[in-house]
Amino acid sequence: MGDSRYTGVLLYPRFSEYELSVLLSVLKQGGKRTIFLGLDDQPIRGEAGLPSKPEATIHDFDINLLDSIVLPGVDDFEHLVGHQELAEYLHKVDDQKRVIAAISSAPYLLSMGDVLAGKTYTTGLTTQQRTFLGTFEEENYVDAPVVVDDYLVTARGSAFIEFAFRVGDLLGLEYDKTWFYPDCRI
Amino acid sequence: MGDSRYTGVLLYPRFSEYELSVLLSVLKQGGKRTIFLGLDDQPIRGEAGLPSKPEATIHDFDINLLDSIVLPGVDDFEHLVGHQELAEYLHKVDDQKRVIAAISSAPYLLSMGDVLAGKTYTTGLTTQQRTFLGTFEEENYVDAPVVVDDYLVTARGSAFIEFAFRVGDLLGLEYDKTWFYPDCRI
Repeated sequence: MGDSRYTGVLLYPRFSEYELSVLLSVLKQGGKRTIFLGLDDQPIRGEAGLPSKPEATIHDFDINLLDSIVLPGVDDFEHLVGHQELAEYLHKVDDQKRVIAAISSAPYLLSMGDVLAGKTYTTGLTTQQRTFLGTFEEENYVDAPVVVDDYLVTARGSAFIEFAFRVGDLLGLEYDKTWFYPDCRI
Repeated sequence: MGDSRYTGVLLYPRFSEYELSVLLSVLKQGGKRTIFLGLDDQPIRGEAGLPSKPEATIHDFDINLLDSIVLPGVDDFEHLVGHQELAEYLHKVDDQKRVIAAISSAPYLLSMGDVLAGKTYTTGLTTQQRTFLGTFEEENYVDAPVVVDDYLVTARGSAFIEFAFRVGDLLGLEYDKTWFYPDCRI
């Protein structure tokens, strides 16, 4: 592996379990260390109800130990709109060297932290939603299941398997794709 | 929905997050009530490290409130081999009317509880593993990604999406398959 730093996996209320879980398995298969980071130290539930409790918070885990960060989507993310602490954290994480991965609605969180500036990206959010939120650079939106721009991986929710593969590949991990896609190759 | 009973989702240490999470989303989309049941009241981790804490245990949640039960796979399930309390619980759950769904290695847990007796099934476990474990009826094994026999759904781990669809269909739920399989129809 060479690098013993962590992938920080953000867990906020209503995170999408299925958008995240194939990537978790790829990270595990590849021997990557992970840390599950909450916005605070409270127990939370995923969007399908899975009860979880992050191991640490974005405030107390040393950011220098992270070489990458993953943001799952959120079905109803009203509680995260304009979340200043999260926006500042993501802005700090974005040092142009770390891998940053966001799926479904989560690219919005990146846009809050100015992480998408000048980068091509995709998202599960519609044009109308992006316009309403007002934080996206519309000219850099790409109509594709997954977009990789340098260290940044974004995806639509339904592309959760390919999203996992692209992040695993960017991190140089070895893993077995047939665990997840036996009859349909990307 | 008509039926307000719950799907019991068993969470034991090292449960496979990705094998479970599409089914969780199908249940949520379909408006099904779920309860996450542990073997005891301790916090646990999934096989890829996701920290969780079941809402109730198999000992304290009223079995009459369950119309179905789901068992995720476990990569290393030595801690569950010969688990008498779990075997007895599954035997009790199996009243020939509830939907019972198990993926990957989890059909072994059903076999411990005599739930597979006389039923066709599949599993991610190899012939050698099944023989070693000694609880399977080998003549009823079917070499297929997913097998549905009456109220019983079993699957290989890699068929986690089709597994979710078959369980959702058996429960009569409405859900959108394109959330999970945009470019490859089963």
